[in-house]
Amino acid sequence: MDLTRSAVETLDDVDPLADFRSRFVGAEDDGPDRLLYLDGNSLGRLPRETPAAVARVVEQEWGQGLVGSWADWIGEATRLGDALAAGVLGAQPGEVLVADSTSVNLYKLIEAGARARPDRDVLVCTADDFPTDRYVVAGVADGRGMTVRELPADVDEGLHLETLAAALDDRVAVVVLSAVAYRSGALADMAAITRLVHDAGALVLWDLSHAVGAVPVELAAVGADLAVGCTYKYLNGGPGAPAFLYVRRDLQEQLRSPIQGWFGQRDQFEMGPVYEPAAGIERFGVGTPPVLGMAAVDVGVRLIAEAGIDRLAVKGRALCELMAALGDAWLAPHGVVLASPRDPARRGSHLTFAHPQAWQLTQALIDRQVVPDFRTPDRVRLGPAPLYTRFVDIWDAMQRFREVLDESAQERYPAERSRVT
Amino acid sequence: MDLTRSAVETLDDVDPLADFRSRFVGAEDDGPDRLLYLDGNSLGRLPRETPAAVARVVEQEWGQGLVGSWADWIGEATRLGDALAAGVLGAQPGEVLVADSTSVNLYKLIEAGARARPDRDVLVCTADDFPTDRYVVAGVADGRGMTVRELPADVDEGLHLETLAAALDDRVAVVVLSAVAYRSGALADMAAITRLVHDAGALVLWDLSHAVGAVPVELAAVGADLAVGCTYKYLNGGPGAPAFLYVRRDLQEQLRSPIQGWFGQRDQFEMGPVYEPAAGIERFGVGTPPVLGMAAVDVGVRLIAEAGIDRLAVKGRALCELMAALGDAWLAPHGVVLASPRDPARRGSHLTFAHPQAWQLTQALIDRQVVPDFRTPDRVRLGPAPLYTRFVDIWDAMQRFREVLDESAQERYPAERSRVT
Repeated sequence: MDLTRSAVETLDDVDPLADFRSRFVGAEDDGPDRLLYLDGNSLGRLPRETPAAVARVVEQEWGQGLVGSWADWIGEATRLGDALAAGVLGAQPGEVLVADSTSVNLYKLIEAGARARPDRDVLVCTADDFPTDRYVVAGVADGRGMTVRELPADVDEGLHLETLAAALDDRVAVVVLSAVAYRSGALADMAAITRLVHDAGALVLWDLSHAVGAVPVELAAVGADLAVGCTYKYLNGGPGAPAFLYVRRDLQEQLRSPIQGWFGQRDQFEMGPVYEPAAGIERFGVGTPPVLGMAAVDVGVRLIAEAGIDRLAVKGRALCELMAALGDAWLAPHGVVLASPRDPARRGSHLTFAHPQAWQLTQALIDRQVVPDFRTPDRVRLGPAPLYTRFVDIWDAMQRFREVLDESAQERYPAERSRVT
Repeated sequence: MDLTRSAVETLDDVDPLADFRSRFVGAEDDGPDRLLYLDGNSLGRLPRETPAAVARVVEQEWGQGLVGSWADWIGEATRLGDALAAGVLGAQPGEVLVADSTSVNLYKLIEAGARARPDRDVLVCTADDFPTDRYVVAGVADGRGMTVRELPADVDEGLHLETLAAALDDRVAVVVLSAVAYRSGALADMAAITRLVHDAGALVLWDLSHAVGAVPVELAAVGADLAVGCTYKYLNGGPGAPAFLYVRRDLQEQLRSPIQGWFGQRDQFEMGPVYEPAAGIERFGVGTPPVLGMAAVDVGVRLIAEAGIDRLAVKGRALCELMAALGDAWLAPHGVVLASPRDPARRGSHLTFAHPQAWQLTQALIDRQVVPDFRTPDRVRLGPAPLYTRFVDIWDAMQRFREVLDESAQERYPAERSRVT
C-alpha cells in the first residue's frame, strides 16, 4: 500500500460516496487545522437536512397541528422501523420498531426471551461486551433467579466460536452478543453463531449498535431471533436518539414484553380493562414515542439507505485498512499497537489501538483536533464513518497521532489521570 | 356568576397570568373563528422559545460540539429533575430524574417497590386509572406472581378514601394512584392517602401526569414515596417528551431499578465488570437520555416555574368553575352532564362531560375549531391550560358546544363510529 498523502488523495478521488460529505455539517472543511472527527461510532455528525426536519416537526406539526398531528405520529415508530428493516437491517416489514433506548429494548427482549424458555435458567453474554448489555443481562438474571455464563472473549479478536459452543446446552435460554464489538471492532459471524445457538434450542439477541449503518446486517438471512440497536452512531440520529428493536415475525406471538405499556396494547385508544398485546411488532412498544427524536432518525436512516450499506461497508473496510497500515508504519514503533482483528473481513468500521498511556494520548489527540474515544483501560478507539470520513482525513489524523508520539512522552502527558472523558 | 361574555372578559382583564399567552405559538389569535385548544392536558402548546432552544441543541451542541457536548448533556437529566423538583413538584434536589417514558418509569418504580417489600404480594390500583398504569401494574403482578386489587373508583368523583382503606393490609406492597384522574379530573387527597398507605406499611406511587403544572404537588409535604409523570401536557414539553420519576431520598438506597442500564451505573465510564447502582436518583436512569426532547422540556419547566404553580392552580380552578357553570346553563338542558367532581377543590384543571353520543359531539366540536378529547365510552374532556387559555376562550368554546347541540342531532351525527380519534 502506498502510504503517501498524494496516493491517499486518489482514493478519495474515486470514492463513489464522496458527495455525501457535503450532506453533513462540518464535514466539508478542507483546512489543514480542521477537526478530524473519528467518533462517528459514538455520536454521528449532524446531517444538513436534520435541523429543518426537526424544526418542521416542532413548528408545524406540534406548533400548528397540535394534538391532531398524532394521526401521523402514531405510525412513525413502525414506519421508521420498516425503513430500517428494508434499508439497513435486512429484515421484513413489521419486524422492527423504533422505541425507547437500547438498554430498555435489551431488557424487554431478554426478559421476553427468558420467559419464552421457562424451562431454561441460563443467560449467556461475553465478558467484553458493552457495559449496558452485561448489566442488563445480570439484572434480568438476578430478577429471575437465572445464572449468567459470561464468556471470556478475546478482547482484540472477539468471541471464538468454540468458546461459545462449549457454553451452550439445554439450560441456555438467551444468548446476548454484539455484532461488532464496541472496543475492538471485531465482527461476529452472525450466521454461524445463530446456527450454533439455535442448535442448542436457545434464542440469540444481537446488539447491532456498533454495526448498523457500517456493515451489512442481514437479520433474515442469518435467521436472527432478536436484535436491538441505537441510531445515534453510524445512523446519525442525534444525541439520545430513540433506539430500535427487532423480533422475527414468527416469534412475535410467542413473546410478551415485561413492560405492558399502552403503546403495546392491541386496541390502544379503546383503553379497555385488560392488557392484550398488539398483534405484531407494536406489542414491544411501551410509552409515548419521542417524536422530536424520531424526526432526526428519519433523516439519518434515509441517508444510509441512499448511500447503500454495501458501498458503506466497502469504504469503511478500506478506511480501516488504511488506518491499520498507517498504524503499523507510524504508531507501532512507538508502542501503540493495533488491538483489533488483523483480518479486515473480521472487523466493523472502527479500530482500536492499545498503549499504557491511552488516556493521555486521547487528550493529546483532542488537543490537536482529532476526536477519538478513550476506552478503559488502555485503548484509543478511532471510528471513521464511511458516509463522511475521507481517506485523507485518516491520513491526517494518523499523522497528528504520530506527531503526538514524536514529542516527549514525559513532557506531554500529565501523570495524573483525570476522570473526565 | 355572571355568564355574559362581557363579564367573562373582565376576568381576563385582571388575570395576572394573561401575558403568558404571548409566549405560546397560536395562543394569541383573537379572531372569532380561532382554534379553541382545550387539549393542553393531552399535548400542551408550543412555547415560542422552544424552536430556538431545540435548534441550538441540534445545530450548535450536536452539529458543532459533537461528542464533546456530552460534558453538558450528561448532567441534564438530573439538572432538569432538580428544576422540576424545585419549581413544580415540591421535592428536594436529587430526588427527581428526567428519563424514559412515563410507562417505563412506572414499571421501574413499581418493580423496585415490589422488590423492596418481598414479604408482600399485592399491588393496588384503581379500575378507572389511565390504561398504561393499570397495564403496567398487571404486568408486574404477572411477572412476580402477585395479585392486583383493582379498586372500583367512582368514575366521576374519584377514589373514596374508605374504598382504599378497606383494601389495605399487610399483603400490600405498592399502591399506584393518579393525583388527578385522567378522565374525570378528580383530584386525590395525596396527604390523606399517603398516610393511609403508610399506615399499612406499603409504598405509594403517584402518577402526576394530569396534575403536574396544573395543581400544586407537594411531594415532600405529603411524604410521597414514589412518583412518575409526563412532561408533554401542562408542562408543554412536546410530543413524546421524556418523562420524570421521583424517589424520596431516604428510599433511594433501598430501591433498585429492574433495568440495570449503564446510565444507572455508579461509575458509568469506568465500564467495569459489575453493575453497582449509582448512589442517588441517577440509579433509576437506564439508557442514553433523549437530548433533543430534554431541550424542549427545559423551556416548558421554566415557563411553569416562572408563572408559579399556585397562580396556575388558582386560574385553572377558575377556568373550570366557569366551564362548569356554562355547562350547567347551556349543555345540561341537552343532556350533556358534568362528569367531574362538583366541588372545585376536588378537581384538577380539566372537566369531563358525559353524553351517549360523546364521540360524535367530539367530532362536531373539532369541525367548529374546538379541540377536546374523546374518552371512552361516552365522555368529552375539556382541558384548559391556565398558562395560555383565556376565560373568553372557555366562553366561546362552550358557546360553540351549545350551537352543536342546538342543531338536529339526527342530521349532524353520523351513526357509525369511526375508530380514528
